[in-house]
Amino acid sequence: MFESAEIGHRIKKSVYQREEPALRQALLQAQYELLENATFPVVVLVNGVDGAGKGETVNLLNEWMDPRHIRAQAFGALSEAERDRPEMWRFWQALPPKGHIAILFGSWYTDPIIERVMGRQKRGQFRRRLERIRHFERMLVAEGALVVKLWFHLSRRAQKKRLRELASDPKTAWRVSKGEWRRFAHYEEFVGVCEEALRETSTGEAPWQIIDGSDPEYRALAAGRVLLEALQHRLGGAHCPVLPPPPLPPEPLDGRNLLNTLDYGRALTREDYRRRLAKQQARLGMLTRHKRMHDRAMVILFEGMDAAGKGSAIRRATAAMDARYYRVVPIAAPTDEERAQPYLWRFWRHIPRHGSAVIYDRSWYGRVLVERVEGYCAEGDWMRAYDEINDFEQQLAEDGAVVVKFWLAISQDEQLRRFRQREATPYKRFKITAEDWRNREKWPLYERAVTDMLERTSTSIAPWRVIGTDDKLLARIEVVRHLADTIEQATGG
Amino acid sequence: MFESAEIGHRIKKSVYQREEPALRQALLQAQYELLENATFPVVVLVNGVDGAGKGETVNLLNEWMDPRHIRAQAFGALSEAERDRPEMWRFWQALPPKGHIAILFGSWYTDPIIERVMGRQKRGQFRRRLERIRHFERMLVAEGALVVKLWFHLSRRAQKKRLRELASDPKTAWRVSKGEWRRFAHYEEFVGVCEEALRETSTGEAPWQIIDGSDPEYRALAAGRVLLEALQHRLGGAHCPVLPPPPLPPEPLDGRNLLNTLDYGRALTREDYRRRLAKQQARLGMLTRHKRMHDRAMVILFEGMDAAGKGSAIRRATAAMDARYYRVVPIAAPTDEERAQPYLWRFWRHIPRHGSAVIYDRSWYGRVLVERVEGYCAEGDWMRAYDEINDFEQQLAEDGAVVVKFWLAISQDEQLRRFRQREATPYKRFKITAEDWRNREKWPLYERAVTDMLERTSTSIAPWRVIGTDDKLLARIEVVRHLADTIEQATGG
Repeated sequence: MFESAEIGHRIKKSVYQREEPALRQALLQAQYELLENATFPVVVLVNGVDGAGKGETVNLLNEWMDPRHIRAQAFGALSEAERDRPEMWRFWQALPPKGHIAILFGSWYTDPIIERVMGRQKRGQFRRRLERIRHFERMLVAEGALVVKLWFHLSRRAQKKRLRELASDPKTAWRVSKGEWRRFAHYEEFVGVCEEALRETSTGEAPWQIIDGSDPEYRALAAGRVLLEALQHRLGGAHCPVLPPPPLPPEPLDGRNLLNTLDYGRALTREDYRRRLAKQQARLGMLTRHKRMHDRAMVILFEGMDAAGKGSAIRRATAAMDARYYRVVPIAAPTDEERAQPYLWRFWRHIPRHGSAVIYDRSWYGRVLVERVEGYCAEGDWMRAYDEINDFEQQLAEDGAVVVKFWLAISQDEQLRRFRQREATPYKRFKITAEDWRNREKWPLYERAVTDMLERTSTSIAPWRVIGTDDKLLARIEVVRHLADTIEQATGG
Repeated sequence: MFESAEIGHRIKKSVYQREEPALRQALLQAQYELLENATFPVVVLVNGVDGAGKGETVNLLNEWMDPRHIRAQAFGALSEAERDRPEMWRFWQALPPKGHIAILFGSWYTDPIIERVMGRQKRGQFRRRLERIRHFERMLVAEGALVVKLWFHLSRRAQKKRLRELASDPKTAWRVSKGEWRRFAHYEEFVGVCEEALRETSTGEAPWQIIDGSDPEYRALAAGRVLLEALQHRLGGAHCPVLPPPPLPPEPLDGRNLLNTLDYGRALTREDYRRRLAKQQARLGMLTRHKRMHDRAMVILFEGMDAAGKGSAIRRATAAMDARYYRVVPIAAPTDEERAQPYLWRFWRHIPRHGSAVIYDRSWYGRVLVERVEGYCAEGDWMRAYDEINDFEQQLAEDGAVVVKFWLAISQDEQLRRFRQREATPYKRFKITAEDWRNREKWPLYERAVTDMLERTSTSIAPWRVIGTDDKLLARIEVVRHLADTIEQATGG
C-alpha cells in the first residue's frame, strides 16, 4: 500500500516555482466557485506519519486559498467538554457548512491508530472503531460532502532522516521530542496498523490518497493537485444513477398496528393523579441526583401527534429535576446554518455533557416522520436515516448516556376534541394553526410513518416507550414513572 | 423492533381467499416482466424464529410464481466442499442470475446468529461477521441486485403455542425435535441476538421486513405483498442520483512510479538459469506437499501487460507441482452466465478447496485494469472494486489461503521487441492480435491503472510481487522462488 510512496518522489525547485502559481490560481478559483454554489461542503483530512509535512501542507493550503472560508482545525488531547461526550462529538462540531472547506489536521483516525499502536486497544475494538468511521464517512458522502483523505507517508529511512534534520536545526528542534523518537522506534508496528486502517476505510466513496512526504515541493504540489482535481470533478457536477432501495413493507393487512391497538380508554381521578404524580416526581428527583448519574448523560426525547400533550408531560418531568441539571431543546424547522450541515448535526450540537440531561421536544425522528410524509427529503434519505439514527443512539449509549424515547399516542377522536377546545379557549388559541388541521388530514400517512419508525428504531439499546395520552393525567404519570424506572435500572438500583 | 409483530396480526380465511388470486396473478406478472427485462437479479432471504412459517412461505412463493425461474435453496450443515472454502463461498454459488429470483431459506445470517446464541462466538466476532454481511449486501445492491429480507417473528407465547400444535399433530410432529425445544428455552437470548443482527444490518439499501408469523394466512399475504411491492417498485425503474466519488490522485508529478523505477536490466546466463530453476522448483515441489498445506488453499494470480510472459512463468511454476494439486484458470471476457452475476462471482466459483491450488492467468483485477481503461464499467464501479477486492482477499486469507499476486512488468521497448518477434515467428503468430497493438497504444493509461492498483491493493494480507520480466529467465526464477518463499513463511518453516 505504501510501496509507491517509498520510491522517493521529488521534483526540482524550478519546476515547483513554475507550477505553483497556476495551481494556486486554480485552487482559489475552485474555492470561489464552491462558495458561490454552496451546494456541498468539503472535508479534507490530513493524516500520516510524523515529520511527513502534514503541518506544512495545511499551512500551504491555507496560504493558497482564501483562509476566511477554510476552517483548519487540529485535534489534540480531549478538552473537558469533549471527554464528557461521545467520541465523534468534537468532529461533528468541526464539520464545515456547504460551500466551505474544513481541513482537519489529525482526525477521527488519529486516536484509534495511536491507541492500537500503543497496545491500549484490542484488535476487535480497533476494527469496531474503523467500522464506525466507515459509517460516518458514508453518511457524510450521502449528505453531499466531498471527503478528501490525504495520507502523508515516509519510509523508515526517510522518517529517520527527517527527524534528524528537524532535531539538528535550532529553529525546528522543538518539533522532535522524545515522543517522536519513541514512536519512531515503533515504526513497523505503526505502519502496520496504519495499513490496516487505510485498507478498511479506503472506500469507493471516500478513498485515501497516499502522498510521499519526503520532498517538500513534491508533497505540496501533489496535495494541492489532489484537492484541486477532487474539487473540479465534483463542481463539474457529474452524478451517477443509483438504484432505489426496496420499499418498506406495506401496511399491516389487517389494519392493526402499534397505535390503533393501544388502550386509550383508561382514566384516573384527579385525586389519584395528584397522589401518584407526587410520588413518582419524588422518585425521579432522587434518581436524577444519584451519584452514578454524575458521569452519565441523559437524553430524553418526546415525539407525538399534535396536541398529544408533549409540552405538559415535559413540564411534569422537569418539575422534579434540578434546573441546572436539564435543558429543554425544542426542535422546529432547521435554521439556515443547520440546513448547511448533515441532517444529524443539529442534534449532535445539543448533546448533553456527562452529569446533565437534554430533553428534546421533537427530535431527529422528524426525518422519518414529517420529512418523509411531506416529501421534504428523498426516499433514499429517510430510508437510510433509520440506520443512521440507530448508530447515533448507539454512540450515545456506548458513551454511557441513558436514552429515553417517548411516543405520546393520541387517538384521532381525542385530537379533534382538543383541537376544538383550543379554538374555543382564547388563551389556547395560539396553540392551534391551519397546519395542525392539514397534518390531521394526513393522519393515515403519519400513522404509517410512526409505526415504521417504531418498528425500525425500537432497539434494546434505545427502546421506544409508547404511551396513550387520551387521559392526560395517566400519561403524565407514566412519563415520569418510566423516566424514574429507566434511571433506576441504569444505576443498578 | 419486534413490538409490531407481537400485536397478533391475523386476517380472516375469507379475506385470504378473496385476495390471494389477485396477489398471485400480480406476482406472476412481475416475475415475467423481470425475466423479460433481465436487468437485475432478486435475492429473497427468508429468516426468522422456529415455527414462524418460513418453510410454508417458501413453498407458497414457489407455488404462486413460475418455479422454473425461481431457485429456492435451503442452507443446512456445511458440506465437505463448503467446509473447505471461505464461509461466503456457498452463498456466492446460490446467487441468481439477472432476471431470476433466488429464495434463500436460512442464509448468511443463520450461522452467525446460532453461534452467538449458543455462546460459541464472542460478541466481537459476531459483529465482525455482521459487518462482513453489510459489505456483501452492499456489493450486491451496487451490482444491481434487489435484496428483499424477510424476517418471520413469533412472540414467546406464540412460538410455544405453535411448537405444541406442530408436536401434537402426527403429520408434523417430526418437525419439532429436541433441538427446537432447546432453542425455545433460549428464546430471550435468541431474540436479543436477532435484534442486534437486524439492527446492524437493516440498511437503507437492504432493509429488513419483519412479518408476524403467527397466522398462516396473514404471513402468506404479507410476505407476498412485500415481494410484489419491491418488484414493482424496482421494475418501475426509479433511479436516485448519487454523487460521484472523488478521483484517484493524479499521476506522480515527477513521473516516477512503481513500474518505471523498476530495474529491468538484470540478466542471467542460460546455465545459471538451469541450475537455479532446478533448485527453486525442487523447493517449491517439496513445499506444496508440506503437511501444513493440506488444510490450506493456495490462490495464485498472474497479471501483466501483453507479452510479459505470464504463460511461461506459470508453466515453470506448475512444472514443480503435482498435477492433482493445482488448476490453471485462464480469465478471458466473461461468459453470458458470468455477465448476469455480480463481478466477483466468476472468481469465487473457482476458489480452490483446502489442500489445493488455483492459478489465475489474469484475474479479478481486470475490473481496475482493462475495464477501467476501456470504459467497460462506470467510474463508481471500479472505484469501489479496490475495497471489494481487498475484502475478498481478506476472506481468502482468513480461511487460511496462501494468496500470491504477481505483476509481471515488462518495459515498453521489450514488449515491442517481443511483439515483432511473435509476428515473425509462424508458430507464435497466434499470440499476437490487433488488440495487442491497440492496448499498447494505451500504455500510459494502463500504467496509471496498474500503479493505482498496486498502491490500493498491495496489503499486508495479500501483497503484490512486482517482477521485471525483460529478462525472462530471471523472471521465471523469481516467480518460482517467491512462491516457495511464501509457502515456507506460511508453513512456519
